[in-house]
Amino acid sequence: MSENSSVGIVAPQIAHFNSPLTLKSGQVLPQFNLMYETYGELNADKSNAVLICHALSGHHHVAGKHHEDDKNPGWWDNLIGPGKPLDTNKFFVIGLNNLGGCHGSSGPLSTNPDTDRPWGASFPILTVEDWVNSQARLADFLGIKQLAAVLGGSLGGMQALQWSIAYPERMRHALVIASAPNLTAQNIAFNEVARQAIITDPEFYEGDYYNHGAVPRRGLRIARMLGHITYLSDDAMGAKFGRKLRDGNIKYGFDVEFEMESYLRYQGDKFAGEFDANTYLRMTRALDYFDPAFEHGGDLSAALAKVTADFLVVSFTSDWRFSPARSREIVKALLDNELSVSYAEVTAAHGHDAFLMPDAHYHNIMRAYFAKIEV
Amino acid sequence: MSENSSVGIVAPQIAHFNSPLTLKSGQVLPQFNLMYETYGELNADKSNAVLICHALSGHHHVAGKHHEDDKNPGWWDNLIGPGKPLDTNKFFVIGLNNLGGCHGSSGPLSTNPDTDRPWGASFPILTVEDWVNSQARLADFLGIKQLAAVLGGSLGGMQALQWSIAYPERMRHALVIASAPNLTAQNIAFNEVARQAIITDPEFYEGDYYNHGAVPRRGLRIARMLGHITYLSDDAMGAKFGRKLRDGNIKYGFDVEFEMESYLRYQGDKFAGEFDANTYLRMTRALDYFDPAFEHGGDLSAALAKVTADFLVVSFTSDWRFSPARSREIVKALLDNELSVSYAEVTAAHGHDAFLMPDAHYHNIMRAYFAKIEV
Repeated sequence: MSENSSVGIVAPQIAHFNSPLTLKSGQVLPQFNLMYETYGELNADKSNAVLICHALSGHHHVAGKHHEDDKNPGWWDNLIGPGKPLDTNKFFVIGLNNLGGCHGSSGPLSTNPDTDRPWGASFPILTVEDWVNSQARLADFLGIKQLAAVLGGSLGGMQALQWSIAYPERMRHALVIASAPNLTAQNIAFNEVARQAIITDPEFYEGDYYNHGAVPRRGLRIARMLGHITYLSDDAMGAKFGRKLRDGNIKYGFDVEFEMESYLRYQGDKFAGEFDANTYLRMTRALDYFDPAFEHGGDLSAALAKVTADFLVVSFTSDWRFSPARSREIVKALLDNELSVSYAEVTAAHGHDAFLMPDAHYHNIMRAYFAKIEV
Repeated sequence: MSENSSVGIVAPQIAHFNSPLTLKSGQVLPQFNLMYETYGELNADKSNAVLICHALSGHHHVAGKHHEDDKNPGWWDNLIGPGKPLDTNKFFVIGLNNLGGCHGSSGPLSTNPDTDRPWGASFPILTVEDWVNSQARLADFLGIKQLAAVLGGSLGGMQALQWSIAYPERMRHALVIASAPNLTAQNIAFNEVARQAIITDPEFYEGDYYNHGAVPRRGLRIARMLGHITYLSDDAMGAKFGRKLRDGNIKYGFDVEFEMESYLRYQGDKFAGEFDANTYLRMTRALDYFDPAFEHGGDLSAALAKVTADFLVVSFTSDWRFSPARSREIVKALLDNELSVSYAEVTAAHGHDAFLMPDAHYHNIMRAYFAKIEV
């Protein structure tokens, strides 16, 4: 195995779960599938497993390629592989598509075994807590009693935090990157605009568009365009696009004038052709609902009282979606509980998206942290 | 006339202009109407006139009421009136609805005299420069050779700045509040998402929805919800709404869960029932296009070389739409030209909307500035 190379060709797998999963909403999923991938080898005492939790539009394909000519490696391929910061020569890495997703795990797009039709709008609304419970089932399925680490960025970081709360005995390290202990009112507001764009799209049919041969593309496109604004910093957008005109002069119309517009439309169109609207709605609700302090009168330190894991918390200076101040709230609550926590505030221009970028300082922090994890 | 009282009952008026207006796009408006209101008395030498320029969704009704039971006074009523910071005992104040508007001035909603049908999508796209030229015509119509001041917030501030560039001999003071010398890429991006929500609404009919008995309400609603996020600061939203649940507990659905959502939906619905989509599109393009430095290789100081007016520039600390840094760019360029400029950065929690609020510090600054203007 070489340094800094790819995990190579990988194949997704499906784990089927027959025993019911009771959700936070009270609904019960009688059975479900999880699509997952693994990289590296599980060691003899099964102590080297790292679970990757994905963010809003992520999935199980985290590293490597699906075939030789695959142009798109996994979404965190720059971090994970032989010799990379999360080194698959040392660790056994698991990526999965969360419940409610649209990449192979049970979700609105998949078939409801009771009806033999797509679940559609009837698929339950899930929470971060539900995801973590389903991920614990996946760990059982793989024969892993204790994860070396759970790692996630953004909504994925919330899952890593929830793991430390719900399953302290089943994981040793939590890596919470570009995340927050809950959403602010402004975060919720952006989610709500995205949801309303989808729900009011005439092609949405109250979520049962599959049965109408329709897709709420317009709404999904608007949701994604808006999302992209919040993933990038004002400065990064300024540096990348500024006020650049696509054709050099103004044409006084509503077609693309600025490069910025062209980028957003491209991103929106691409996403609307790939992603499921019902999944998008559910992912944003999971974000909205996550708030471990809520049941402790808003006291995050109290919410973390049973945590035993060691933590790495990383934030990025230009991230205005989940600002460094939100990460510091997590760090404070961990320290209140006398836990071992490393915190890094990385100077980066890319905004929230920085957690996906191969920034050298950031990756060195990740490399150093993973290097010290004993397996 | 008492202190701090209302200008009372006011009536809008229409000025008709028969000579053609050549627009920056090259199109020509052969004739046009402007709806306007005035408050206070024009003095004998016509030296006490103050023009108010409105922002994206504003209009001519700036102060006073239209009838005794009118629940909504003009949009800047807290600033303008006898004894108020812009004192109508001293000044003659003019508010107008800009060209392309939907409150009585010629615009997409109004009748094209050539066809006897609504202009709709065929109404020209206007720029800040065009508006200022049409406002100069209104000053002519009122017999005013030189305005004591031009005042505007946000997009209105851009018009005040443009007045100082285009008509240095026709105005003595420019008050540029919560504004910017151009939009950033992020500003343009938010406008583009709003426009795309409107344009892709199936009820838009390429802007000719009037002829289809339709209104692109969905798109306009999304545009306004998004707008409201950018008008408020994250902190102000947090203080006002936070994560408050409307019914105290989570219901696991896509109906309103959080107070924040309820507020946005209310604002969106209200606006979609009142405002014209074609006007909204045009207002956002006027914002996008404004960039006086563009024709001077990006050099704002060069763009302001012919300015002679004195300036008051005001920004608000929590305004992330038009941040204080953007106001300081204007101040720097004015000082480069050795102009007289007062600058205040007001500590305010309300974000961009602060320019409409009766903050005591802010209003005292306005009062002091208007008090020193000689008429």
